[in-house]
Amino acid sequence: MKKNYLFTPGPTMVPPEVALAEAQSMIHHRTPQFSQIFYEVSEDLKYLFQTKAGDVFTLMSSGTGAMEACVANVLSRGNKALVVVSGKFGERWAELCKCFGIETITIDVENGKAVNPQDIETALNKTRGINVVFTTQCETSTGVVHDIKSISPIVKKHGALLVVDAITGIGVHQLLMDEWNIDVAITGSQKGCMMPPGLAFVCVNNSAWSVIEKADLPRYYWDFRKMRKELKDKTTPFTPAVSLVMAMKAALDMIKKEGIENVWKRHARLAHATREGAKALGLELFAGEYASNVLTAIKAPTGIDVDKIIKKLRDETGVTFTGGQDELKGKMIRIGHMGYVNDFDIIVAIAALEKGLYEAGYPVEPGKGLSKVQSLLVSKK
Amino acid sequence: MKKNYLFTPGPTMVPPEVALAEAQSMIHHRTPQFSQIFYEVSEDLKYLFQTKAGDVFTLMSSGTGAMEACVANVLSRGNKALVVVSGKFGERWAELCKCFGIETITIDVENGKAVNPQDIETALNKTRGINVVFTTQCETSTGVVHDIKSISPIVKKHGALLVVDAITGIGVHQLLMDEWNIDVAITGSQKGCMMPPGLAFVCVNNSAWSVIEKADLPRYYWDFRKMRKELKDKTTPFTPAVSLVMAMKAALDMIKKEGIENVWKRHARLAHATREGAKALGLELFAGEYASNVLTAIKAPTGIDVDKIIKKLRDETGVTFTGGQDELKGKMIRIGHMGYVNDFDIIVAIAALEKGLYEAGYPVEPGKGLSKVQSLLVSKK
Repeated sequence: MKKNYLFTPGPTMVPPEVALAEAQSMIHHRTPQFSQIFYEVSEDLKYLFQTKAGDVFTLMSSGTGAMEACVANVLSRGNKALVVVSGKFGERWAELCKCFGIETITIDVENGKAVNPQDIETALNKTRGINVVFTTQCETSTGVVHDIKSISPIVKKHGALLVVDAITGIGVHQLLMDEWNIDVAITGSQKGCMMPPGLAFVCVNNSAWSVIEKADLPRYYWDFRKMRKELKDKTTPFTPAVSLVMAMKAALDMIKKEGIENVWKRHARLAHATREGAKALGLELFAGEYASNVLTAIKAPTGIDVDKIIKKLRDETGVTFTGGQDELKGKMIRIGHMGYVNDFDIIVAIAALEKGLYEAGYPVEPGKGLSKVQSLLVSKK
Repeated sequence: MKKNYLFTPGPTMVPPEVALAEAQSMIHHRTPQFSQIFYEVSEDLKYLFQTKAGDVFTLMSSGTGAMEACVANVLSRGNKALVVVSGKFGERWAELCKCFGIETITIDVENGKAVNPQDIETALNKTRGINVVFTTQCETSTGVVHDIKSISPIVKKHGALLVVDAITGIGVHQLLMDEWNIDVAITGSQKGCMMPPGLAFVCVNNSAWSVIEKADLPRYYWDFRKMRKELKDKTTPFTPAVSLVMAMKAALDMIKKEGIENVWKRHARLAHATREGAKALGLELFAGEYASNVLTAIKAPTGIDVDKIIKKLRDETGVTFTGGQDELKGKMIRIGHMGYVNDFDIIVAIAALEKGLYEAGYPVEPGKGLSKVQSLLVSKK
């Protein structure tokens, strides 16, 4: 009886309510019936991004598509971009900017650490005339969370726009679009939103429009101006992913019912228990004090082939963790705990971790991690 | 007991087998489990495009996204494009080329007519050095089908690439990628493939790669080179829409079981019956001899508000037709009959058409269109 337990950095587990909403009878997108659903989803997305002033657009793409859309909409030829690179997804911002011919300065942050906001100030002082600062909220490749709240005033002081990849942040960590003065933030459906992959969401605050209106990079499918125009009519410029939008309605209903503050708290609680469970097994964490609540990145113990453990657990038990990417390959186990995850899922994750390590010959006392996790979960709300 | 009957140009009706496949338990995309499904889908897509030599890429976007991907991959700065414009979707090719700064020459075809392949020859002779010819196979805005088979050798003779928007053509009309020597063709999931919207498919033949490799327009999310590299490893460069890919497997299984030639024949048969049914009601068709089997575009009878009929039928009975777009608004009723459509669906469509016209005061003898359709359907295989 193998079940799929997805402790991955996305796609994450999908509630049956959401999966079945996706299987509803198909309707045409140019109808009042669809417009009503799309309108409700778009309004609920404002709650998710904690914005009243901004618009939230629904893109039919992966998160990378939404990143490209940001680059194509906020930059113009001859502009300069500053990118915070603390892993694979920060690198992607830089690659995208360069692909569009933009002069790109990077702040390279040590793996497992968050950027020091002062380093952004220094970089903005060193290179004058930077138009846009791109950063990641949660870097899933290393499990780090950046302090967007402290970064924002520095960027604004220098008159630049702040664009945040919150693909794995939204619905997990607090992100206050309006209060923190973020210009553009994005997320994807297959993370905290508990959805299958297929949709990405872009929140554009009022402050960004003067730049977007005048920007001159080529954009058609990604054009935020067209999206804003159509959103006023409760629709999209091009055929939307109807079934995914219907599923998103169900997912957002669940988030609203729990309350976004409770969603953030739940993730903090589960992440804390996971970290402590791993430490109780004598494991070292990758991200230390900068650890995000999205996933727990555990350093591979010396002499243990963690990729083999991950593969064996996945194929034999259905519990899916992920390893390190690129230069971090073989160096970590990443346990995702975002979205449709509760106490008992963390118990399962730690049980599987113990089992995998035990079978690989790492000295584990079975139940030691579990006891730690259980003691934390039963005593804390 | 209102049911959704989608006689629309996409999204089209989704078989329950496909919708429920979409609701399957989520799996991670970087696993052998997903790779196996993705590989099978990619192989089956070759059958759909009738190619052995080409690669078929699965994009997470609408059809327009796939169109942008083609433009960004086959053109370079300073290139010239020739675009066949016979309606809204031909226009879209031209808009995209211009958006990317490409010198764009259009052949404007009269509404309701197909392009004369000789006009393409003339245009290619008149403007030397055209790099790419873009055309539509089925123009859903007017219900016309273009003769791609005759267009292809003309384009090849002039050394240009041929890129075909077969978004509504594939899975309805014959399209032979290899035999007709098409360089690039695209389709979308929500048309002949009987799927929800969310995926687009691009077939790239070997002939196009030397151009794609050297092309210099900015491309990242749309980069065919990255897609080809990842397809060899049975995966995608960015997170794919896992649930839609699983549903696509179910849809392709149905198409393979019926046989693609039978799929084409079925559409020809149903389209013929629909056209004759409409004519039996004294209605005039928009496309005449160039009518595609994707949809039947019927001219609005004088003095009849067809948009009101469409709205009333949709809201009261769930039967969804569409009207004309842009300058054709109010001038036509479009009855789609592609994908998951059988004889009895056509009976329902004509019954609804009769009802709508009757209630709007158009002189209809109830059952006249139905009798015509039924007589054709029972007597012809």
